[in-house]
Amino acid sequence: MKAVRVHEYHADPVIDDVPEPEIRGPLDVIVKIGGAGVCRTDLHILEGQWADLQNPDLPYVIGHENAGWVHRVGEGVTNVAVGDTVILHPQPSCGLCTPCRAGRDMQCVNAFFPGLSNDDGGMAEYLRTTARACVKLDPSTNPADVAALADAGITAYHAVRKALPLLHPGTTAVVQGAGGLGHIGVQCLAALSGTRIIVVDRNPDALELARQIGADEAVVADGNQVQAVQDLTGGGADVVFDFVAEQGAEMDGWHMTGPAGSYYVIGYGGELRIPTLDLVAGEKNVVGNIVGTYTDLAELMVLAQAGKVTLHTQQYPLDRAVDALRDLDAGKVRGRAILVP
Amino acid sequence: MKAVRVHEYHADPVIDDVPEPEIRGPLDVIVKIGGAGVCRTDLHILEGQWADLQNPDLPYVIGHENAGWVHRVGEGVTNVAVGDTVILHPQPSCGLCTPCRAGRDMQCVNAFFPGLSNDDGGMAEYLRTTARACVKLDPSTNPADVAALADAGITAYHAVRKALPLLHPGTTAVVQGAGGLGHIGVQCLAALSGTRIIVVDRNPDALELARQIGADEAVVADGNQVQAVQDLTGGGADVVFDFVAEQGAEMDGWHMTGPAGSYYVIGYGGELRIPTLDLVAGEKNVVGNIVGTYTDLAELMVLAQAGKVTLHTQQYPLDRAVDALRDLDAGKVRGRAILVP
Amino acid sequence: MKAVRVHEYHADPVIDDVPEPEIRGPLDVIVKIGGAGVCRTDLHILEGQWADLQNPDLPYVIGHENAGWVHRVGEGVTNVAVGDTVILHPQPSCGLCTPCRAGRDMQCVNAFFPGLSNDDGGMAEYLRTTARACVKLDPSTNPADVAALADAGITAYHAVRKALPLLHPGTTAVVQGAGGLGHIGVQCLAALSGTRIIVVDRNPDALELARQIGADEAVVADGNQVQAVQDLTGGGADVVFDFVAEQGAEMDGWHMTGPAGSYYVIGYGGELRIPTLDLVAGEKNVVGNIVGTYTDLAELMVLAQAGKVTLHTQQYPLDRAVDALRDLDAGKVRGRAILVP
Amino acid sequence: MKAVRVHEYHADPVIDDVPEPEIRGPLDVIVKIGGAGVCRTDLHILEGQWADLQNPDLPYVIGHENAGWVHRVGEGVTNVAVGDTVILHPQPSCGLCTPCRAGRDMQCVNAFFPGLSNDDGGMAEYLRTTARACVKLDPSTNPADVAALADAGITAYHAVRKALPLLHPGTTAVVQGAGGLGHIGVQCLAALSGTRIIVVDRNPDALELARQIGADEAVVADGNQVQAVQDLTGGGADVVFDFVAEQGAEMDGWHMTGPAGSYYVIGYGGELRIPTLDLVAGEKNVVGNIVGTYTDLAELMVLAQAGKVTLHTQQYPLDRAVDALRDLDAGKVRGRAILVP
Repeated sequence: MKAVRVHEYHADPVIDDVPEPEIRGPLDVIVKIGGAGVCRTDLHILEGQWADLQNPDLPYVIGHENAGWVHRVGEGVTNVAVGDTVILHPQPSCGLCTPCRAGRDMQCVNAFFPGLSNDDGGMAEYLRTTARACVKLDPSTNPADVAALADAGITAYHAVRKALPLLHPGTTAVVQGAGGLGHIGVQCLAALSGTRIIVVDRNPDALELARQIGADEAVVADGNQVQAVQDLTGGGADVVFDFVAEQGAEMDGWHMTGPAGSYYVIGYGGELRIPTLDLVAGEKNVVGNIVGTYTDLAELMVLAQAGKVTLHTQQYPLDRAVDALRDLDAGKVRGRAILVP
Repeated sequence: MKAVRVHEYHADPVIDDVPEPEIRGPLDVIVKIGGAGVCRTDLHILEGQWADLQNPDLPYVIGHENAGWVHRVGEGVTNVAVGDTVILHPQPSCGLCTPCRAGRDMQCVNAFFPGLSNDDGGMAEYLRTTARACVKLDPSTNPADVAALADAGITAYHAVRKALPLLHPGTTAVVQGAGGLGHIGVQCLAALSGTRIIVVDRNPDALELARQIGADEAVVADGNQVQAVQDLTGGGADVVFDFVAEQGAEMDGWHMTGPAGSYYVIGYGGELRIPTLDLVAGEKNVVGNIVGTYTDLAELMVLAQAGKVTLHTQQYPLDRAVDALRDLDAGKVRGRAILVP
Repeated sequence: MKAVRVHEYHADPVIDDVPEPEIRGPLDVIVKIGGAGVCRTDLHILEGQWADLQNPDLPYVIGHENAGWVHRVGEGVTNVAVGDTVILHPQPSCGLCTPCRAGRDMQCVNAFFPGLSNDDGGMAEYLRTTARACVKLDPSTNPADVAALADAGITAYHAVRKALPLLHPGTTAVVQGAGGLGHIGVQCLAALSGTRIIVVDRNPDALELARQIGADEAVVADGNQVQAVQDLTGGGADVVFDFVAEQGAEMDGWHMTGPAGSYYVIGYGGELRIPTLDLVAGEKNVVGNIVGTYTDLAELMVLAQAGKVTLHTQQYPLDRAVDALRDLDAGKVRGRAILVP
Repeated sequence: MKAVRVHEYHADPVIDDVPEPEIRGPLDVIVKIGGAGVCRTDLHILEGQWADLQNPDLPYVIGHENAGWVHRVGEGVTNVAVGDTVILHPQPSCGLCTPCRAGRDMQCVNAFFPGLSNDDGGMAEYLRTTARACVKLDPSTNPADVAALADAGITAYHAVRKALPLLHPGTTAVVQGAGGLGHIGVQCLAALSGTRIIVVDRNPDALELARQIGADEAVVADGNQVQAVQDLTGGGADVVFDFVAEQGAEMDGWHMTGPAGSYYVIGYGGELRIPTLDLVAGEKNVVGNIVGTYTDLAELMVLAQAGKVTLHTQQYPLDRAVDALRDLDAGKVRGRAILVP
């Protein structure tokens, strides 16, 4: 089969012809890929940023945002059958460790992450995953339409869902960064809460779009954004979702957070510097957020199928994966680039 | 192997010689039984009360409260190995359905319940269960000492743990029924909360024991118990745990519950009759409670190994299972009867 | 001033000329009434149903759903000033008892309830209440437009808000009774959650309206409604909100509730009869709900001012209070009848 | 009356003869002081550290940890009467603003803080506070025995109570700093949870005491404490309570926190520096904590009266306040210094 493989860092990946993956364990599932999202993390992998942390043997297949159809199943698989349309949670979990038993499968101590850890990903014709990663979809769903929800989508959804108990009517939430994830975050907030939504971004077009999908206020990040949010909120927001969290946005996000408020970090790259007195006097919190759980993915698919969360995508044939990666790097992709067979 | 089998209802079970259970699926685990609790539910099974609901093919092996050592494992089992000491959650779950993914494995839609559903139980030398039912224990643990926590224990623990957010210092909890489950409930409340504990029972000896293990007040159920609780609480408790819930105790429990309070039903057999106006005017709740989850069992074992929950047991050789059942029926068992190999 | 007073039960109230209420304590507030809702509870008061429970000295002024403008304030009042537009929580609370300190002001042990308890209500030109009952509104708000949210509104809102943590996407909620309260409940659910909403009512017109304001499914209560809900939900809803809870609806509501689900009782008049085994085996809950808190009212006003909750009202001059009560009794009021000065 | 007044910063306070405080508003309460705690914050006030933030007019009376007997009440006070024994929440709140209505009275927007803000404190014979600050005690209580719970106590209790939902059996909590607050924190954790408690301190005597009151493990802060906690927990604790949070302890506390864990900041003085990637990858949280609420104080008094939280105190006559402050500064006070009339 064809597969997009990294052979060395700081170089383009190569479309190779490789053997199809095979069932290795009783819970394995082989999925025929119908759509594979192209993510900024793929660029970071190519730059070698994940080399030390994940240490994969090169060459290997990237792609961690996948949907398609079940092709083969191990003997212990009971939740999906050959032919089912599925979207895949990016991190197959064991179902047996303490975090898994509590529904916190992103903290699974036995998980792997195809396309990121030392396991082949989904920019290929077929992918090996496990039963616990498969969310069964309505058969009429086109995998390419939803693939981006498998990683970008659930990351935004997860943060919003955790914060919902804090976001009753009368509160204000700030969304910093109205790109792909922020865009989904705004839609989730509008669908699931009565909070007032303020979006902050450098790009006026992104702000205009944010208004159309549910933002109540839009603030241009022109250097005065912290004061603008302070003014709009009378001293800071109840929750700030920071989808940027680098290049100074992280301190902005913290300073936009009001008394007894919570600063939700989803983006990364920067460094927070906070006097402990500010945490105490304001009784403020900093909340870390990782990719969502399997249950988050299942719930997000409900919102997507009800039309409450939509995502603009731009398709590329698998053969043109390098073009898709270059377009992403050059800021030429509107919404999410999706590789299709 | 030897096994205690029900051949017909309304008759004693028989100690048969039957083949050992075998691995049927990749997640199966065969456990050598070290201790099997004898439960009032076993008496109800023999009386045919579960015949319609579970419809097992007779003869079959009873026993749903088990601990022992792993004897064989299926090829997909990764959490336990042959020789491990384990206590078994009574209901192996699938790990794949929506409730399982949220950690609510008692609502698993694919579960079975050995010794209750149409699957052989643990009053035998060996039992077939699955990986997801096994809680690994310190190797020095004697299975017979802890087996009763596998069902009776987690049922009490589950109800208490659900109620903990309601039981801050200054509140009052009532435990109605100071038998095996209530006894564990009192210990869990004393270990995990600062609530004031009132125990209600007909039996003065049970009340005396309850005081020793953490009860602050003891009320004899002499017909005046509702008034006594009203007086002690100034109008009703914040939470009432009803381990009886039959023969009138259910209405007592409801009437012992104060404004904005919650009545936790764990026992069963009776019928509640409540005017909807009483629910509304008092803003009171009725909370149903089933057997605890796998996570509850794991947590309860931590309390047990720390010596915070203990259980009086009385051992019988497996051959004398009928004696154990008769003693239980006759009220001659103090604590819990445990069959040992 | 003019006031609608009950002189005897089972008779029409009378429009009397009485002295204006006066400031009695430092936290008292006198409000000039701009709108007073006419509620089914007022009919029940006239029928003497509350006589024993509240025991007011006759004659007294009814009306417990009020909004208007601050007319006079006691010397300790700091949150509102003369001239402010306000909506009034129906039950002024003390702010000092244990429930008040935890934000549960409907359980205040020192509260009164003008127009229901032995205190004059708001079907008059002026009403005495306290600082803790006043929610300050945008000065441009017409009190007559929002008065009905002061009691009917917050009762529906309170139940929905309590249930929100149970109503993530993928769940189903049933609203039984699509009258005034149910109508508000549907709008709150649609605004604040991603749950699927099924509305059950006898009246096809009410169902049609429910669909327009957010219901996903409508079920005619034609005797087959329990089965219809079971079919739509695959075995019962996650939450059932019962705004009827009498004449059999209460057992319907319970039976529409699925495993691990919760039956929220808001209406009243009937009697629940539930075997404790059903509570245990299904791990189901019954949740009582009273009028909402002050905070609920403040939050609901945010939704109302954002246009997310609207209420059809029909105005009557204060002089025509008896007509309004008769129209309500005869089922001739669409939405809520509001008395205006 | 006699009062301990600050006349200028960087100088000893003076015992002055000043007029008794008077009732100014209907909710005011004058309390005859029976015990006033001497706190490190008093030293900071004398050093001028709070001068800019609170800007009190000098001279003024310090002392914010008070208990005594009600001496006079305003006309609107209903919860206490002259002669009642009371402990005082340090920050009288309004009961009317949004945070107060939700029970979060430390975020009251109209509060004052006698002895810290520009209002005379309790190192005097009498203090002016308000009804909402008074927790009524059993008349037999000696105010001097409990005064320290009014500020130090509820600060520790508040953090522990917020964290309890995270501290089920099987988890581990670290308490960094086993001084006055940490000492209370350990007792609260032992009384209210089944978590394993690890205490970290430089002082072996403090660790020995911590073991006696409930710590399971003690770690000397000898430079290797982060690794020691990592080893004891297999990668970090579920919750770290940091009662130090300065001089490097703040980074230690963060690094002792495990995946999906929470770092609770109670002490202050240092600066956290955290890469946002660490928050995301570990899904870790930082939780700020201020002084507890009125409800926290009421609950803590229940624990204290049940003997579950005790505090060593050392009494000084009011006249010897300067000695008490000097002893505190010199590290010569064991437990808490309390001024008595």
